[in-house]
Amino acid sequence: MNVNFSDLRQRFVALRENKLFETFVIVVIVLSALVIGAKTYPISEPVARLFQLLDTGITLFFLLEIVVRMLAERRLRDFFKQGWNIFDFVIVTASLIPVEESQMALLGRLLRIFRVLRLVSLIPELRILLSAFLQAIPRMGYVSLLMFIIFYIYAAVGSIFFSGVNSELWGNISIAMLTLFRVATFEDWTDVMYETMSVFPLSWAYYLSFIFVVAFVFLNMMIGIVVDVLHKEHQKYERETGEGEAGEVHWIREHTATIEQRLARIETLLEERQDRARQ
Amino acid sequence: MNVNFSDLRQRFVALRENKLFETFVIVVIVLSALVIGAKTYPISEPVARLFQLLDTGITLFFLLEIVVRMLAERRLRDFFKQGWNIFDFVIVTASLIPVEESQMALLGRLLRIFRVLRLVSLIPELRILLSAFLQAIPRMGYVSLLMFIIFYIYAAVGSIFFSGVNSELWGNISIAMLTLFRVATFEDWTDVMYETMSVFPLSWAYYLSFIFVVAFVFLNMMIGIVVDVLHKEHQKYERETGEGEAGEVHWIREHTATIEQRLARIETLLEERQDRARQ
Amino acid sequence: MNVNFSDLRQRFVALRENKLFETFVIVVIVLSALVIGAKTYPISEPVARLFQLLDTGITLFFLLEIVVRMLAERRLRDFFKQGWNIFDFVIVTASLIPVEESQMALLGRLLRIFRVLRLVSLIPELRILLSAFLQAIPRMGYVSLLMFIIFYIYAAVGSIFFSGVNSELWGNISIAMLTLFRVATFEDWTDVMYETMSVFPLSWAYYLSFIFVVAFVFLNMMIGIVVDVLHKEHQKYERETGEGEAGEVHWIREHTATIEQRLARIETLLEERQDRARQ
Amino acid sequence: MNVNFSDLRQRFVALRENKLFETFVIVVIVLSALVIGAKTYPISEPVARLFQLLDTGITLFFLLEIVVRMLAERRLRDFFKQGWNIFDFVIVTASLIPVEESQMALLGRLLRIFRVLRLVSLIPELRILLSAFLQAIPRMGYVSLLMFIIFYIYAAVGSIFFSGVNSELWGNISIAMLTLFRVATFEDWTDVMYETMSVFPLSWAYYLSFIFVVAFVFLNMMIGIVVDVLHKEHQKYERETGEGEAGEVHWIREHTATIEQRLARIETLLEERQDRARQ
Repeated sequence: MNVNFSDLRQRFVALRENKLFETFVIVVIVLSALVIGAKTYPISEPVARLFQLLDTGITLFFLLEIVVRMLAERRLRDFFKQGWNIFDFVIVTASLIPVEESQMALLGRLLRIFRVLRLVSLIPELRILLSAFLQAIPRMGYVSLLMFIIFYIYAAVGSIFFSGVNSELWGNISIAMLTLFRVATFEDWTDVMYETMSVFPLSWAYYLSFIFVVAFVFLNMMIGIVVDVLHKEHQKYERETGEGEAGEVHWIREHTATIEQRLARIETLLEERQDRARQ
Repeated sequence: MNVNFSDLRQRFVALRENKLFETFVIVVIVLSALVIGAKTYPISEPVARLFQLLDTGITLFFLLEIVVRMLAERRLRDFFKQGWNIFDFVIVTASLIPVEESQMALLGRLLRIFRVLRLVSLIPELRILLSAFLQAIPRMGYVSLLMFIIFYIYAAVGSIFFSGVNSELWGNISIAMLTLFRVATFEDWTDVMYETMSVFPLSWAYYLSFIFVVAFVFLNMMIGIVVDVLHKEHQKYERETGEGEAGEVHWIREHTATIEQRLARIETLLEERQDRARQ
Repeated sequence: MNVNFSDLRQRFVALRENKLFETFVIVVIVLSALVIGAKTYPISEPVARLFQLLDTGITLFFLLEIVVRMLAERRLRDFFKQGWNIFDFVIVTASLIPVEESQMALLGRLLRIFRVLRLVSLIPELRILLSAFLQAIPRMGYVSLLMFIIFYIYAAVGSIFFSGVNSELWGNISIAMLTLFRVATFEDWTDVMYETMSVFPLSWAYYLSFIFVVAFVFLNMMIGIVVDVLHKEHQKYERETGEGEAGEVHWIREHTATIEQRLARIETLLEERQDRARQ
Repeated sequence: MNVNFSDLRQRFVALRENKLFETFVIVVIVLSALVIGAKTYPISEPVARLFQLLDTGITLFFLLEIVVRMLAERRLRDFFKQGWNIFDFVIVTASLIPVEESQMALLGRLLRIFRVLRLVSLIPELRILLSAFLQAIPRMGYVSLLMFIIFYIYAAVGSIFFSGVNSELWGNISIAMLTLFRVATFEDWTDVMYETMSVFPLSWAYYLSFIFVVAFVFLNMMIGIVVDVLHKEHQKYERETGEGEAGEVHWIREHTATIEQRLARIETLLEERQDRARQ
């Protein structure tokens, strides 16, 4: 019996590694995405029933696929050791929860949308892009905190001074922060400014300083992260392939070490002879 | 007869290589562009007729020019081996198609506009710029796919929740994607947000998260590609000329190799003597 | 008595260095920020009185904390030698000024907002970000001056020509500069342009040239500074850790120097022998 | 008499080099800028007359200053060899032209504004910034040409299709180019799009493709130039000071050359001995 099961796992591994099976999974995900999209159009009754069937089919297929991948592992624990597997597992099980009540139906539809994200876990190039994004998070963290502090201070000042001018824009600190985000995106920010300038003629300094500081911090965050990540990627690639400047520098470094060893040997040879000559 | 034809080809090659002829071709392209532009202004009957004549003349000249370049090749196949030749050929032949019916006349005018693109294939600097653009496409491909997935998911969520609020902006998934593109360009995005916030007060989180994610991915794509392409260009140029840092590193690498060879020779010399001394 | 005081200072140093105490200070700052934020919402009388109490408590705590840090120093002068200490001192003492009159109450609230900035002086990562910002100021200075000159010239031209068209936008040079800043952020700039184009049909050249020049100078300033600062950071980090390209180059440089010394020794050895052989 | 003149020139050179004189020139330029700015405000008759006097004084001072600098040169030709001198000369002489007629008075005021630009030629840091800008022009040239071709083609297509929808935006090719520039700055571009989409439902593809292509080319131009200029500046600075990576690479290169020479000498020494030993 145990042998039989091991035999079965071999087959599951083969199935999981199968290129055709992988392509089929991608096709099903895209199909599931299309069904989600199509449902936002007005559809007739029979088409809706067809979609219902398709939806159930896709859900079952995803369940089957994840079970195959789980059984293909020696121990279930190994399956959950990889981040992407947990990601897939959560998405699949979440879409299994039966949500039949009218209010919860919305949640069910929402959960099914996130199945499109499984494309990211399946296509290696997208996985690399996403992990670059995740790597940037710690660096982004502190810059975001600094940005939040700037927003908070400006919003507090704004809501103290301007709440009397327009309470819809500056009524309390959270509304003021939203208004400031709008100013930061330059969306009709002059309307906001002209309104407050009619009461506080010098308030342009508030807006201009805010725009300068935020633009600087934001661009710093964005450009800094991208250039940083690219810089490391380049050097890693160049070192590995030996191509490009970083690759050549690495080559020189290694050869400088062998040159030094060779020179040390030559020096010993000469010194030994010197000693013998003196004897 | 064969000799005659070979002689003729020699002349065609000379004509194609002629700097004056090239300049004349550029002048004709610019003229053709000006005619296209001038036609968009209200013009009197005689001027229109003049333009018609000019247009026919330009079409014939382009036909002539491409025939000259085709005959200048040893075999016709060689002509089609270069991408830019195919590009020129398609543009020229497309503008030859007789489109006299009123409905198709528009298509004829459209095709003639693309003759301006021949400037790109004629001026080497523009060709370099365009090929840099084309080189960036594979990299852009996956980032665009990631961006499309993000847009798709947000559009699906948006059309499920907000289609009741404003069906003109969120009616179905394709309209929702267009609305999201508008939000991504910050074009009156607050109007869109305030509308949905009146029904879903927490929907600001939807917009803000979308703006952050898209700005990050988009800037990553744009800056990443540009810096990448520039980095490679710089290193290639520096290596070729031996100037700059990458050029010097390349020089050092080559000389490190000769130093190693020289050291190996010295070591052999010393060891040989050592052996002789021991004998 | 003197010994007693030295003993006390030891305790203050211990308290200042205490990780728990530091965390508690951060918590108090965040609490103070929350109180500031909460006050912008309509609050009932008892809650307001609670906030008043909290506010007094926070003010006293900050006073206590800064006194502890002052007493922990050997001499008071040492305390004021660090920029961040002066920064904290100004913020704390400013919020101590009793402002009871209705008009001045606003100023008191404003000063209390700036206490949130103390987060920056407490969290090392934020301090690094801010000092990078401050380092960029000299470079930004001249570019800002150039930008100001450009704005001034365009504003002078604009207010001479367009003040008759719309005095609210172009009435005098300072209003014109604000309008130009609006144009630079693309905020409804076409409305401004179409208005002046109805009187001066060629004024589009004024706007387009302005947008190009400002976009170039601004992007130059922003990107230039960020890339500059990052470049120096990278190289400094790589040199210190010996990792990456700059680190390897530094390693090679040092080893090239030892190779040279070794070679010089070998050459002397050989020449000495040569001389002896000749004797 | 000739000696006297040479003596006088010595004094002019001394005056030109004088730091105080330079500062005074800067003060006069700033004063001239302030007068220009102040004139845009409504001013009373006596103030206007004062400004008139100041203006004449400034004009005369500038004339005097440039004459001093001209006489300080050995030959007048040397003066005109420097680009910045020509720049100053044109600005000063242009503001001398007597423009008394009401219509020409505007021109006179305009010319006087450009005297502010003399600040750029006086402050070295601004001169460096401007020459970096001028260096970037050749590179910008071809990218601008490519951008112009893209605008031209899209404008031609737009004016053919959409002139019937809204002739104010798409009436002819030049109006269409202005509209496209507006779309490129995202200024109310959705209004333009929704209008044409009501007639041509697929016209969103026209706008989206345009935005993508232009954003790519524009960002390429801007970022490319800035990063390029910075890259060269860094390497030049690092090479000259010997600091940083590029400086160290340069140091290694030079020392690698001396190592090679030393090794060549050692090898000759050994080979000579070898030959003698064989004899």
